[in-house]
Amino acid sequence: MRDSAATRRALLDAARELFASDGYDATTVRAVADRAGVNQALLFRYFGNKEGLFAEAIRGRALGLLDGTQHDLLERTIDAVLDPDNTTEPFMAVLRVASSLQVGADLRAELGAAYTSAFAALADTDDPADAVSRAELLLAWLLGITVMRSIPGSPAPGPKDREHVLRAARALLGAAAATTH
Amino acid sequence: MRDSAATRRALLDAARELFASDGYDATTVRAVADRAGVNQALLFRYFGNKEGLFAEAIRGRALGLLDGTQHDLLERTIDAVLDPDNTTEPFMAVLRVASSLQVGADLRAELGAAYTSAFAALADTDDPADAVSRAELLLAWLLGITVMRSIPGSPAPGPKDREHVLRAARALLGAAAATTH
Repeated sequence: MRDSAATRRALLDAARELFASDGYDATTVRAVADRAGVNQALLFRYFGNKEGLFAEAIRGRALGLLDGTQHDLLERTIDAVLDPDNTTEPFMAVLRVASSLQVGADLRAELGAAYTSAFAALADTDDPADAVSRAELLLAWLLGITVMRSIPGSPAPGPKDREHVLRAARALLGAAAATTH
Repeated sequence: MRDSAATRRALLDAARELFASDGYDATTVRAVADRAGVNQALLFRYFGNKEGLFAEAIRGRALGLLDGTQHDLLERTIDAVLDPDNTTEPFMAVLRVASSLQVGADLRAELGAAYTSAFAALADTDDPADAVSRAELLLAWLLGITVMRSIPGSPAPGPKDREHVLRAARALLGAAAATTH
């Protein structure tokens, strides 16, 4: 028997896999519970409903990148965005779910604010509004790379592009970001 | 009575307005013809069908930016992407239509290739593959800014960000782009 932490983890893993392969709308809580080998009642107890499960599954993965040290935050996030083994589907799901459900808007706002604030701390300016502007532009770039990677048949930026992205991101953020690594 | 060039223009203007306000799927050729004050038969004669009308309406607008001089191409495209008066809807429509219809894939491929090739010519490198990589990364950024602008409630990059985007884009493309202006 698994303990509750292991059960939660199994549900979140199963949810990420199914949201990524089938999309948000086509994923049912029953399928997630079945895949995790867990009773549906536990899923509802831990996450409330499908929206809650989705938010938790994506949030944990997306915010995990922010957990490391600040000095290599830029490298870490750029590497993650360019990693061909990282599926873009969960992030595209967040984008797509947005218009129909509050969970999409909430999650986007939360993730956007977390990354903007982390990147803004790297910006070489005394003007907080300017730091936020630069951070949002960097976020727009990572978003654009993710969207481009998700489009079948379009060019897929990858690890070969690391140095270019880093150089331009540092030019965007300013000297402080350029000297952190 | 309008001549055929004026009729085509009226149809393309009406199509852009309706595709932008209602989206691709909800726009009918009848509504476009009515709005332009033109008989539907003429629409079919000039553009074949709704897909052809869409491609022509978007293509002309999107490729028009490439018509000017190369030396201020970067400034021109960045200004257009940051201009709050430019609706992002036609470009989002191209992205959204993609999965269901060939016209989306074709149009994306055509626009992507045209911009990649124009930006690649600005890249400061003797390696053509590297020039293309840098151009695609710039295109991903402009795409990301457009997507971000289209999301209700998210930060909207605008004209205030012009210098930041230019600086980072030049860092991405290399010295040649940096000295063109």
